[in-house]
Amino acid sequence: MKNLLVAQSGGPTAAINSSLAGVISKAKESKEIDKIYGAIHGVEGIFNDRIIELDTLNLDILKQTPAAYLGSCRNKLPDYQTNDEIYQQIFSYFKRYQIGYFLYIGGNDSMDTVCKLSDYAKENEIDVKIIGIPKTIDNDLANTDHTPGFGSAAKYVATTIGEITKDSHVYFLNSVTIVEIMGRHAGWLTAAAGLARNEHRSAPQLIYLPEVNFSKEQFLNDIREQFQNGINNIIVAVSEGIHDENGVLLGESGVSATDSFGHKILSGVGKVLEQLVKEEIGCKVRSIELNVCQRCAGHLLSKTDIEEAFLIGEKGVEAALAGKTGEMMVYQRVSDNPYRICVDSADIHGSANIEKCVPKEWIINGNDITEELLSYLRPLILGQVSIRFRDDGLPEYLHR
Amino acid sequence: MKNLLVAQSGGPTAAINSSLAGVISKAKESKEIDKIYGAIHGVEGIFNDRIIELDTLNLDILKQTPAAYLGSCRNKLPDYQTNDEIYQQIFSYFKRYQIGYFLYIGGNDSMDTVCKLSDYAKENEIDVKIIGIPKTIDNDLANTDHTPGFGSAAKYVATTIGEITKDSHVYFLNSVTIVEIMGRHAGWLTAAAGLARNEHRSAPQLIYLPEVNFSKEQFLNDIREQFQNGINNIIVAVSEGIHDENGVLLGESGVSATDSFGHKILSGVGKVLEQLVKEEIGCKVRSIELNVCQRCAGHLLSKTDIEEAFLIGEKGVEAALAGKTGEMMVYQRVSDNPYRICVDSADIHGSANIEKCVPKEWIINGNDITEELLSYLRPLILGQVSIRFRDDGLPEYLHR
Repeated sequence: MKNLLVAQSGGPTAAINSSLAGVISKAKESKEIDKIYGAIHGVEGIFNDRIIELDTLNLDILKQTPAAYLGSCRNKLPDYQTNDEIYQQIFSYFKRYQIGYFLYIGGNDSMDTVCKLSDYAKENEIDVKIIGIPKTIDNDLANTDHTPGFGSAAKYVATTIGEITKDSHVYFLNSVTIVEIMGRHAGWLTAAAGLARNEHRSAPQLIYLPEVNFSKEQFLNDIREQFQNGINNIIVAVSEGIHDENGVLLGESGVSATDSFGHKILSGVGKVLEQLVKEEIGCKVRSIELNVCQRCAGHLLSKTDIEEAFLIGEKGVEAALAGKTGEMMVYQRVSDNPYRICVDSADIHGSANIEKCVPKEWIINGNDITEELLSYLRPLILGQVSIRFRDDGLPEYLHR
Repeated sequence: MKNLLVAQSGGPTAAINSSLAGVISKAKESKEIDKIYGAIHGVEGIFNDRIIELDTLNLDILKQTPAAYLGSCRNKLPDYQTNDEIYQQIFSYFKRYQIGYFLYIGGNDSMDTVCKLSDYAKENEIDVKIIGIPKTIDNDLANTDHTPGFGSAAKYVATTIGEITKDSHVYFLNSVTIVEIMGRHAGWLTAAAGLARNEHRSAPQLIYLPEVNFSKEQFLNDIREQFQNGINNIIVAVSEGIHDENGVLLGESGVSATDSFGHKILSGVGKVLEQLVKEEIGCKVRSIELNVCQRCAGHLLSKTDIEEAFLIGEKGVEAALAGKTGEMMVYQRVSDNPYRICVDSADIHGSANIEKCVPKEWIINGNDITEELLSYLRPLILGQVSIRFRDDGLPEYLHR
């Protein structure tokens, strides 16, 4: 009998705790696992000796709780070839707590940690099974059809774009509404704005992803063309990471703001484009930054995402128990219609430090996305989670 | 048998269509009302002869649809003593369509319209009953305990503040998160952020309303004091309308931004305070503007609000049928615990053009609110609406 240690890392999502719940649930079932520990603030919990037992958590509430229950960190391990001190520290800690299984739930940087730790263990013949469980709203991990957390963020983005569209239509005038969506290099989440379109509305009419170069002139022409086509209230979905042909981020180019001390302020992409439309077109214009709300809106979850996230947590434990190590759990899409996935695992070297972006052939004219991309996205936001509310009228979340 | 005309005006809310549904529902029941018309874009629908029949709308879907289904306007009528041309136009239009009842759902400016139209009708002995039905997320209308639309916005604000708090706690570092909330002169909605506090969390630790003067120095001291008290992740709720002792809005004072053309950009209050904390305290800081999402989030409704909004629409029709005119429908709170209201009507002159702000005695030290204010707010966000979703996974809203 050995113990299991689980930790979370990277940016929060609304589904990362569902994967944690899946890990705990499966570990509790197993006769080969004794204690279930959680490290607080990712691997930093190991350095600081902050681990807690997780057996008694209410998993139903944990599943619907956004952000990382165990806390998170942004910690990149050094190469062990040059400095293995920290590795000795980690594995002696594992030995002390009889950790036989280490599951790390996280994004790109966290998979790098999984990769290094498992390589080190193999080279030094240490018997700890180390498994990565993906999560990121950016959907930018390689080797998996999509990532846990992305579906709920996509549902939030599409719902909110739909509601903003209703809001923008109430007055009888021409308007442009710019919605800034997260995603520095990968445009998946911005593309999900396109899911707001239906038989009643064409919004968002324009979608700009960071995978292609952005031109202000083309953007202004795009807006003018929409007005010419009779669209009065234009909704624009734009990634925070759009940049010009030299790679200069728009959020860092157009606006140099100074405060009363003369210091520079970076405004976001939305504000830059808002100002551009105001100056060059002169209609009513507003920008909205969805900000962290798009990654922590536990009150609006994709049932597909939350259930898959739970499943991939369970499967991670199964993989570790089956003796796998140095692998990341992945979704494989079996069919689109009906939508069906299976969970497998893949060598971590194929995922760590690789960023999966939207294929260029799924982007149209630099301002729209293809039906193929929408078909890929559609199943991921399906189903609602009837979350539990407290007596005070607010969602019930688990607190550490 | 006469016809009824209903219209919507002012800023969108998530409950204004529930009141519209209440009006339609009650009007359909009545044997004294023949046709039920809706004017598109408020009174401008009358000027532009754009009215539609409303008998066949799906009221269940209408109730959960945010923003104004009939469209809105921001139109202030001239005084009829100086210019009655527009009044003649309106009442001859009413005559042409045999309108015996005109119900106007809106905020402060809309109640001014109700006031002027009903005064004119009385003076000129025109038999059209004119009733105002309040709505505004600002909760700033006089004579009513609260306004339809406020409860849902308050629930959205409190829920979102709770989720942002979870998001801000994942890393092990000191941080300040500033959330900018709507309300130029009245701080009710910003105060609703306080509802996010519970036995597990003290956030938002600081709440700044526009009813009292704001001092940057005091703000920085407040932040420092929170850190000294051991709060690592400080959440600040701040109204967009905070201003210094000279009435200068903070959003217009601290930051003067220039774009590449040298034009001035106004950044919001949140950005100004973010920059201030960055410069003066130097910890991690982020600002989040809830923007229009707080008034149009149809996916997160207060059941209390939506049901009351429907009821006040119904009662508006009853009042008109009972011969009342020149009145605004109001909520009267009968008891706090158990929470109970009744709907009445009051002379429109007591509501039009009067802004009801948060009483000074409900504000503590300029950075917090009293338990009395929280007790007033608590019942308004209670209960969830299980809204209908489409097959595509997004909320079902009614489209005109």
